[in-house]
Amino acid sequence: MTTQTLSPNKVRGRQIRLGAFLPGGGQHVAAWRHPDHPADGATSFEVHRQLALTAERGLFDAYFLADGLAVSFGGATEGGSARIAGFEPVTLFSALAPLTTHLGFIATASTTYEEPYNTARKFASLDLISGGRAGWNVVTTATEAAAQNFNLDQQLPHATRYERAREHVGVVKALWESFEDDAFLRHKESGVFYDRSKVHATDHVGAHFKVKGPLNVPRSPQGHPVIVQAGQSEDGRSLAAETAEVIFTAHQHLDTAQAFYRDIKTRAIVAGRDPDHLLIMPGVSPFIGRTEAEAREKYEQLTSYILEKDGIALLNALTGGTLDLAGFDLDGPLPPAPPTEGMKSRQALIRQIADENRFTIRELYQWVASARGHYTVIGTPEQVADMLQEWFEKEAADGFNILPPWFLTALDDFVDLVVPELQRRGLFRTRYEGRTLRENLGLPFPIHPRSLAAPGVQAAE
Amino acid sequence: MTTQTLSPNKVRGRQIRLGAFLPGGGQHVAAWRHPDHPADGATSFEVHRQLALTAERGLFDAYFLADGLAVSFGGATEGGSARIAGFEPVTLFSALAPLTTHLGFIATASTTYEEPYNTARKFASLDLISGGRAGWNVVTTATEAAAQNFNLDQQLPHATRYERAREHVGVVKALWESFEDDAFLRHKESGVFYDRSKVHATDHVGAHFKVKGPLNVPRSPQGHPVIVQAGQSEDGRSLAAETAEVIFTAHQHLDTAQAFYRDIKTRAIVAGRDPDHLLIMPGVSPFIGRTEAEAREKYEQLTSYILEKDGIALLNALTGGTLDLAGFDLDGPLPPAPPTEGMKSRQALIRQIADENRFTIRELYQWVASARGHYTVIGTPEQVADMLQEWFEKEAADGFNILPPWFLTALDDFVDLVVPELQRRGLFRTRYEGRTLRENLGLPFPIHPRSLAAPGVQAAE
Repeated sequence: MTTQTLSPNKVRGRQIRLGAFLPGGGQHVAAWRHPDHPADGATSFEVHRQLALTAERGLFDAYFLADGLAVSFGGATEGGSARIAGFEPVTLFSALAPLTTHLGFIATASTTYEEPYNTARKFASLDLISGGRAGWNVVTTATEAAAQNFNLDQQLPHATRYERAREHVGVVKALWESFEDDAFLRHKESGVFYDRSKVHATDHVGAHFKVKGPLNVPRSPQGHPVIVQAGQSEDGRSLAAETAEVIFTAHQHLDTAQAFYRDIKTRAIVAGRDPDHLLIMPGVSPFIGRTEAEAREKYEQLTSYILEKDGIALLNALTGGTLDLAGFDLDGPLPPAPPTEGMKSRQALIRQIADENRFTIRELYQWVASARGHYTVIGTPEQVADMLQEWFEKEAADGFNILPPWFLTALDDFVDLVVPELQRRGLFRTRYEGRTLRENLGLPFPIHPRSLAAPGVQAAE
Repeated sequence: MTTQTLSPNKVRGRQIRLGAFLPGGGQHVAAWRHPDHPADGATSFEVHRQLALTAERGLFDAYFLADGLAVSFGGATEGGSARIAGFEPVTLFSALAPLTTHLGFIATASTTYEEPYNTARKFASLDLISGGRAGWNVVTTATEAAAQNFNLDQQLPHATRYERAREHVGVVKALWESFEDDAFLRHKESGVFYDRSKVHATDHVGAHFKVKGPLNVPRSPQGHPVIVQAGQSEDGRSLAAETAEVIFTAHQHLDTAQAFYRDIKTRAIVAGRDPDHLLIMPGVSPFIGRTEAEAREKYEQLTSYILEKDGIALLNALTGGTLDLAGFDLDGPLPPAPPTEGMKSRQALIRQIADENRFTIRELYQWVASARGHYTVIGTPEQVADMLQEWFEKEAADGFNILPPWFLTALDDFVDLVVPELQRRGLFRTRYEGRTLRENLGLPFPIHPRSLAAPGVQAAE
C-alpha cells in the first residue's frame, strides 16, 4: 500500500495535520494498568509536561484535551477509572504553554454550563499567554451528572443544547472582537493608552444570553483561538459547518469518513465559507510494533487489563447512559437501547460497530476500550502511515487526531516511528511553519470586521 | 521609631506575612506612564513572569491579583486606562506556577457570576498544578457593567450578593472535600484505582444553587486553596469571620486598623474559630527613597502623570459608580454621593479621606491614585519598616499586602531595601518555611471531615 513515488500531496503542498489526545490518565480504559503508564498520570503535572514536550518533539499541531463536568464512576466516556479526577483543561494548558514554544493547545469547554463572557475570557487569556496557540473545542456536555452539578435535575434536550451552543459561540466570537488590533497606542507622553473608537461593545440580546461587552482581554497574535467542534449529529454538523475551523470526527470505515468529509465541505460552501478553512480530523488509535505480530501483542496485552465492570461502564457511557447491561450475558449480543438525550452520534456508532462485527458485549467493550468509536489501527509504522496516507489522499481527512492508547511509550512510538515515515513520504512537516496554532494549521488570520471596512484590506475568507 | 532591641515578635516567633499586589498594568492609575514601567505590562506575559520571580526573590507569601468582569473605561477601581484589558487571573497564575517554586498565587473570582462547580474546579486545578500554592479571593463583583455582561440589566442588591456569596463558598468548600486524601489506591495488579467509599457527593440544595457533586479534581498537598476575602461592610465582615483564612483590608489610621483587627478576631472566636487562623493584612502602597525627600520626589513624579479624566473616573469607580463629577470644580470639595449597591465600604473610606484631609477633588484623586484607599507610606526603607513594624506589633495587622505603585523598580525597591530591613529586625523570614501557601502563611492543613471521625486524629482547629 505504501507509495514510494512522489505523492500528489507533495506536489499540491497539502500536508497532514496532527492533533494528539493526551489525557494523563491514559486513552485506553485500562491504560493506567500498563507497566509503562504512570498510575497517577491523571493528576500529575509532571506527566502532562512530558506529554506536551513529546508532542512538540513530534511536531504535532496541537495537544487536545476532552473534558467533563462531573465525576464518572467506573469507566466512562472520557476514560477509565484512572480518569475519575484530574486537571481542568484551560488551567492545565495555561501552565504548559510557557514550557513549550510551538505546540497548540485545544481545550474543551461547555456552552451549556458556562457563561459566554467567562468562556471568551479564559480562552482569550490562554491565547495571550501562549502567544496565539489556543483552540476551543466547543461541546454541549451530554451527561445527566453534569446537569446535576449545575442546578438542574436533568439535562436540557439535545436541540436546546445546540440552540444555546450556537448562540454561545456567536457571543464569544463577538466578544473576541472587542478590541481592534491597533486599539492600543500606549503613548506615555500624551497619556493616551488606547483609542476609544477601536473598542467595541457587543450588545448581544438573544434567547439564552444578554451580554453587553466589551471583553476585557485583547486579541492575541492569532486574532482569536481556533474554533474546534466534534458534533456528528445533524445539529452538530450544521453548527460545525457554520462556525468550526477544525472538526474532530470518529469513523470506522474509509467510505463513511469520505461521505462525512464531502458532507461537511459541501455544507461549508453552502454557508459561504472556503472549505479549506475547515479541517476534518478523524481520530485514530494506533498500536505500533516492529512487526504486525508485535503490534497485535501490544493490543492483546492492554485488552487483558480491562475489568468487566469498567468495560460495562464504558459501554453505558458511550451509548449515552441509557443502556443498563446488568444481568446480560457478556458473551451474548448487545441488547437494544432507548434513544439518548446525550451524544446521539456516538450511540449510533457504537451500535454500528457491534452489528457489523457481530461482537458480543465483551468483544465490543474490548474493541472500543482504546479508540471509543474512533479508528483502531494495529501494525508496523509503515502500515500505520499507509492507513493515514490513504485516508488523507482519498479525502477522508485533512489530518488526524492521534489517540495513543497509553503513555508515554505509545506516544513515543508514534513520534519516533510513524512521524519520520510520514515525513519521508512528504506528508508531514519537518519543522513548524509558524508560531501560532492558526499558522501551523494553515488557517487564515481572522481579520477584524472593522478593519474590513478600511480601503485596501482584503478578507482572508 | 526603629527598635534595635530584640523584638517581642522574635521571642514569640510571630512573623509578618507579605502579599504583593502586582497587576502588570501598574497599581497607580498613571503607573504605565512612568519611564521604568513597561507600557504594555497589562498584556505582557513576560512582565508578569518577572513580577512573579521578583516577588519570590523577596520571599513574599503570595502574588495577588484583583479582577473585574467588565471593561472599565478611563481609570477605574482596579486600575487606570492601562488596565482596560489583560489576563484572566487563574489562567495567568496557572502559567506562572511552574516557573516558580514557593510563591503563592491568590486569584480573585466572583461568587455572583460563576457557578460553584466551575469555581471549585479551576481553583482546585491551580492548586494541583502549583503543588498547593493557590488561594481564592472571594468577591461578589460590584459593578453594573459586570452585571450587564451576565444577562442582567443591573446588579443584584448588596445583601443578595452576599447571601449568594455565603452559599457559593459553602458549596465550593464542600466540593473540595469530594475525595478523601487516601481515596486513590492505584493498584495496578488488582485494577482497583480508587476507594469508592472515600469519594463523596455534595448533595447541596440551597436558595441559589443545587449541586450534586462530587468534584472531578482531587485535593492538593495543602488540602484546599486558602480562602481570602476583602469585604469591610457588615455583611462582608460577617462572611469573612466565618469562612476566610486571610482578610485584605484598607485603613488610613492605626487606630481604625486596630479596631478592625479586634472586631474580626472577636467575630472569629464567636464563630468558634482560632483567631490565629484568620490573618489580617491591610494594604500598603510604599514610595521608597534613600532619603525622605527622594521618596517624596518619586511620589510627586507619579502624581504628575495623572490625567484629570483618569482621576475623575477613578473617584467615580471608587465611590461605587454613583458619583458624577462632571461639571464640578476640581479644586473644590467632593460633592455628596447617593448610596451605592456597589462596594459600600470603599465608598465610605474615600469619603472619610476627603473629609479628614479637607481634600479638593483633585487632591483626593491624586492621593488615592496609588493606594485606592489603602495606606500610603512615603519614606526611607527604615521608615517604611517602622510603619509596618508598628502596625504589626500593635495588633493592627498580621501582615501586609504591598502595592508597589509602578513596576518593576518600585517592587525591586521593596524587595531589595525593605525586606532586608524587616529581616534584620527579626520580623520576616529569611527563607520559605514550607512548600505550600498554607505552610508559609502558618495556616493549618484542613483535615478532611471524614478523617476526623477516625480514632486518634485531632482536628487542626
